[in-house]
Amino acid sequence: MSRARPRTHFADALIRRVRELRHPLCVGLDPHLDRIPELFRRGQMAPADPDTALAVEDFLFALLERIAGQVAVVKPQSAFFEQLGWRGIRTLANVVRRAHELDLLVLLDAKRGDIGSTAQGYVRAYLAQGAAIPADAITLNPYLGLDALAPFTAEAQQSGKGIFVVTKTSNPGSGDYQDRDVEGRPLYELVAESLREAAEPLTGPDTGWSSLGLVVGATYPEQAARLRSILPGALFLVPGYGAQGGSARDAVRGFVPGPAGLEGGVVSSSRGVIFPTAGETADRITWEKAIDTALTVAKEALAEAIR
Amino acid sequence: MSRARPRTHFADALIRRVRELRHPLCVGLDPHLDRIPELFRRGQMAPADPDTALAVEDFLFALLERIAGQVAVVKPQSAFFEQLGWRGIRTLANVVRRAHELDLLVLLDAKRGDIGSTAQGYVRAYLAQGAAIPADAITLNPYLGLDALAPFTAEAQQSGKGIFVVTKTSNPGSGDYQDRDVEGRPLYELVAESLREAAEPLTGPDTGWSSLGLVVGATYPEQAARLRSILPGALFLVPGYGAQGGSARDAVRGFVPGPAGLEGGVVSSSRGVIFPTAGETADRITWEKAIDTALTVAKEALAEAIR
Repeated sequence: MSRARPRTHFADALIRRVRELRHPLCVGLDPHLDRIPELFRRGQMAPADPDTALAVEDFLFALLERIAGQVAVVKPQSAFFEQLGWRGIRTLANVVRRAHELDLLVLLDAKRGDIGSTAQGYVRAYLAQGAAIPADAITLNPYLGLDALAPFTAEAQQSGKGIFVVTKTSNPGSGDYQDRDVEGRPLYELVAESLREAAEPLTGPDTGWSSLGLVVGATYPEQAARLRSILPGALFLVPGYGAQGGSARDAVRGFVPGPAGLEGGVVSSSRGVIFPTAGETADRITWEKAIDTALTVAKEALAEAIR
Repeated sequence: MSRARPRTHFADALIRRVRELRHPLCVGLDPHLDRIPELFRRGQMAPADPDTALAVEDFLFALLERIAGQVAVVKPQSAFFEQLGWRGIRTLANVVRRAHELDLLVLLDAKRGDIGSTAQGYVRAYLAQGAAIPADAITLNPYLGLDALAPFTAEAQQSGKGIFVVTKTSNPGSGDYQDRDVEGRPLYELVAESLREAAEPLTGPDTGWSSLGLVVGATYPEQAARLRSILPGALFLVPGYGAQGGSARDAVRGFVPGPAGLEGGVVSSSRGVIFPTAGETADRITWEKAIDTALTVAKEALAEAIR
């Protein structure tokens, strides 16, 4: 009576696509309400206005159609949808569906972390079969411990989904706890070490990369190199490239040689790609050209960095 | 032109109410789909079924009406609503509104944590004026650092809302990182120490308790006592009482003498109160009696513990 579930291994699918495209760019979908171009705006764009989520949806659909075929994965940031209430979550579900129709992988940036049946609730929400928001991978916060991560790794094992554990973040305050010395090495290294056992069985048969990955800020290249030595097979999700000050070269510091250049994860850019200043007040054609240009610039910088 | 915002200081409001009621019980709203009584169920209660969120709403409205006037605060667990997709979030918003109508404070258990504009998005979603889910307080994860908490403390300063930073959680795995030695004390103590500066300005003028609180599991009473000495004015949210094995006496270990017994936070119970086994298959009257009994038992155990 058990129904077979179509199983795609996240790390294999992602790395195969990155090799084909020859760049590791991930487009972050952070719909800042005050940056959405005139073209898509409705009314005052107040979070509580029912039309706002529809405007965000129009904007993101147009964006997804523009970038389809050019990047492996998009990363919606949950907070920007949550701030719009239930209509925002409906928009998020629609955006995930549209991305899948356009053959884009979806990595949901939600940084969830909780225990027991609550963690199971998050698995059901975002990863399990029939999930309301059926992402291909999700970001998680490790603070609560390995038993809090276990329901997610179990799901990843069963269905091939991906999980990215926040390890060393791109913000200045990431030093407050992550860098503190724990028995001879910084906390973020301890977190990575403790994930070895969970990462191993999630290794992709095709590429050798694990669907258990780490979030490692582009602003900390030395730390990325250390983390790579601790977890040689973990995908890295690298935020903080561009707007937060990390260079393309810094962003791929944890990558290693592969069949199509350096590889080992994806580098996320949001503002720099989805809100090119030139397109702010433009008509549709001009806006599309501005997106194309911004996308090309980001892709080429990263393609160059992995060469 | 600036509109004055009605300002209630969360810690003052909570502690005043706890003193009147003479017990620190907080009722956790964790609507496990498989435990919702027959009385409220619709269809198979599959997460993807549109009727499921309506059944959850009926159940929680009936529960809130039953407990109104008897507890200070309820704690909806976000994951159980998120698993129902946008309809679940609409139900969460309705539950928060209904709780407020019934004069119950609402502490949203979401354990969010992110940086910069993303953290601002979470503030707008749950705490800011006009928030889609207008909670009175929220739980936060500290791993990303103090700059990630800053948008929440700024909002708390301005509007009086409460924030509870996850510090020492009730699960066995909380030892994996939280207990590790950082320069002479466990990480969870370092987290508490680093919050002193942010907690101080959030002190309530009426009760002297701060609206910056800590999440401290009932299963770790010794650690709660240590944390109380580090942050004498921080409210504790104590989960893990009952189902997870913490006794009433253990749960209030971080409390201190006040005008109406020991005080210093709230102790959360979910399953033990909202899913009394006796009421599972009953009619409405029998179910109500089962809830009343479970609530009385939980209240009295905690009232006894703070005496």
